[in-house]
Amino acid sequence: MYKVKVYVTLRESVLDPQGTAVKKSLDTMGYQAVEDVRIGKYMELTLEKTDRDVEEVVKEMCERLLSNPVIEDYRYEIEESVVL
Amino acid sequence: MYKVKVYVTLRESVLDPQGTAVKKSLDTMGYQAVEDVRIGKYMELTLEKTDRDVEEVVKEMCERLLSNPVIEDYRYEIEESVVL
Repeated sequence: MYKVKVYVTLRESVLDPQGTAVKKSLDTMGYQAVEDVRIGKYMELTLEKTDRDVEEVVKEMCERLLSNPVIEDYRYEIEESVVL
Repeated sequence: MYKVKVYVTLRESVLDPQGTAVKKSLDTMGYQAVEDVRIGKYMELTLEKTDRDVEEVVKEMCERLLSNPVIEDYRYEIEESVVL
């Protein structure tokens, strides 16, 4: 079994209206120290072992479904978990 | 300056329809090895230094706006970045 953590973020050059809205709310609430907010997605996947290389499979899933490679970047962490 | 990374996830006991939808799509696409998908939020904040303790401020923002403590958990990482 593998525990995979995937982080998907908007590319630097892409506007983030959700982040801007959160920044404005924080500002209104008195957190003027906040200079910038960028919002992304965080996914936790549980995978069974297969014949295929897990990293290859994760990359493929990120490219095909979990992220939009035109406007988003992704990174991932793979942990092998031992089932007792 | 601080770079703060905030991860917000649904509590274990809370249903995650978005995660279920992604799992089903992956299944249809041929990734039957995926057993579970949970979807959360990932936020990157840039904060200026203030008189207040940065950890205290981050916790407060998480409780008040960035997460819904009734159904979500959060964790954060704070990095101090040096501006040259």
